Amino acid sequence: MSEHEQVSLSMPEHDVSRVLSDVADVIESRRGADPSTSYVARLFSRAPDGVLKKIGEEAAECIMAAKDNSPRDILYETADLWFHTLVMLAHYNLRPEQVLAELQRREGTSGIAEKLSRGQGLRSDSTQHKD
Amino acid sequence: MSEHEQVSLSMPEHDVSRVLSDVADVIESRRGADPSTSYVARLFSRAPDGVLKKIGEEAAECIMAAKDNSPRDILYETADLWFHTLVMLAHYNLRPEQVLAELQRREGTSGIAEKLSRGQGLRSDSTQHKD
Amino acid sequence: MSEHEQVSLSMPEHDVSRVLSDVADVIESRRGADPSTSYVARLFSRAPDGVLKKIGEEAAECIMAAKDNSPRDILYETADLWFHTLVMLAHYNLRPEQVLAELQRREGTSGIAEKLSRGQGLRSDSTQHKD
Amino acid sequence: MSEHEQVSLSMPEHDVSRVLSDVADVIESRRGADPSTSYVARLFSRAPDGVLKKIGEEAAECIMAAKDNSPRDILYETADLWFHTLVMLAHYNLRPEQVLAELQRREGTSGIAEKLSRGQGLRSDSTQHKD
Repeated sequence: MSEHEQVSLSMPEHDVSRVLSDVADVIESRRGADPSTSYVARLFSRAPDGVLKKIGEEAAECIMAAKDNSPRDILYETADLWFHTLVMLAHYNLRPEQVLAELQRREGTSGIAEKLSRGQGLRSDSTQHKD
Repeated sequence: MSEHEQVSLSMPEHDVSRVLSDVADVIESRRGADPSTSYVARLFSRAPDGVLKKIGEEAAECIMAAKDNSPRDILYETADLWFHTLVMLAHYNLRPEQVLAELQRREGTSGIAEKLSRGQGLRSDSTQHKD
Repeated sequence: MSEHEQVSLSMPEHDVSRVLSDVADVIESRRGADPSTSYVARLFSRAPDGVLKKIGEEAAECIMAAKDNSPRDILYETADLWFHTLVMLAHYNLRPEQVLAELQRREGTSGIAEKLSRGQGLRSDSTQHKD
Repeated sequence: MSEHEQVSLSMPEHDVSRVLSDVADVIESRRGADPSTSYVARLFSRAPDGVLKKIGEEAAECIMAAKDNSPRDILYETADLWFHTLVMLAHYNLRPEQVLAELQRREGTSGIAEKLSRGQGLRSDSTQHKD
């Protein structure tokens, strides 16, 4: 698909660590925008069901891109899936930083560098993710 | 669910901007681990289908948490969904930074602060997300 | 939603046992139709991905209808989900009767009436459905 | 997968038109069964969320089987998806016959044989399925 050709496979050389926060800010700023000109405002006007439906659809497209073994499509569809979860979070007045804090809590990643440098094994991740 | 009570609703006071990269590093480090002790190694041993199936399941749980209107469950399930997409990315030798770069490309967020400070409208997002 | 008000909650008094076969026949008959006038022809023209994406979306809507505890919505969205799986089957030259035969093979339903009349327990279903 | 080798690709020669009703009856009969021996009873004990989660997972597996272009897997996973929607319907005291009646209402299949024999076009399906 032509749109996906624009997806870059090279690793970004600039800092992208704040992109989720930035995109969440942009989404927030569209809350009151005109649904006829803003896709995000249109999603908000149909929330939550219109957004949740997209999450089901984007998960399906992510799975298809993976089965197609297409790196560009996988990046594109994962971006789509994450984007729509950001809109869902915004609808419920939640922030991506809260999701990141939850991921950090589970993995204990704050102490990883130190633990690795001391040659210690990380605690098993098996108890942190349910089946 | 008792596990979800541990999910914090307060905004993290420390910097969480590198959590996705850190979790991707941890996932990478488990690639050769013992599937009987590491959940991530178990996922890798069943990849891609075992991981993709989880993405379908986690998307469903995310939707249910949203319909339950439960902030803790939404954060927990979104973390689960993002986590499993990180494992999928790792299976295809892709990095979260590449997804973040794609999100940035679409939204043009790099120029947002500047644009807002100049009082300019952001370009419409309607052409950047397909229906 | 107004469309869902048309969904009848009463049990059909006429025989509906052949509806899946009949709908599959109709779907088959639209294969060569004009995509601009037939929804099914439009789905075929985008198959398989366009159909599979709808299965992800309809599964999500089914889940939402269930969480809303709305009988009419559940019937409507289940019909939608089954309908799109019928289009998927048609794309791969498969028939609903083959799926029904597979369901029958697992459950051993052909012998159910007899077994129940003899007061025998049905064999455990636990080995027939994977986890 | 060995389990899928048992899936028959041949068209059933016996009447399978009542299989959905029969399976729904079996599901109904397991409602009070022991969760430790009956998979269906186990699903009921975790309903609705445990069943709805499976619908998300089975939809994903259906999509993967389709992308694998494997007729046996497609039949197997579609049977799995339909089966779990039948358990969902049972949880909400709904029957497959009601879903079939809804599919019939939309397609107007009751009059199809007659219409085809008179050479009339079927009414467009485009208005019956939402986008």
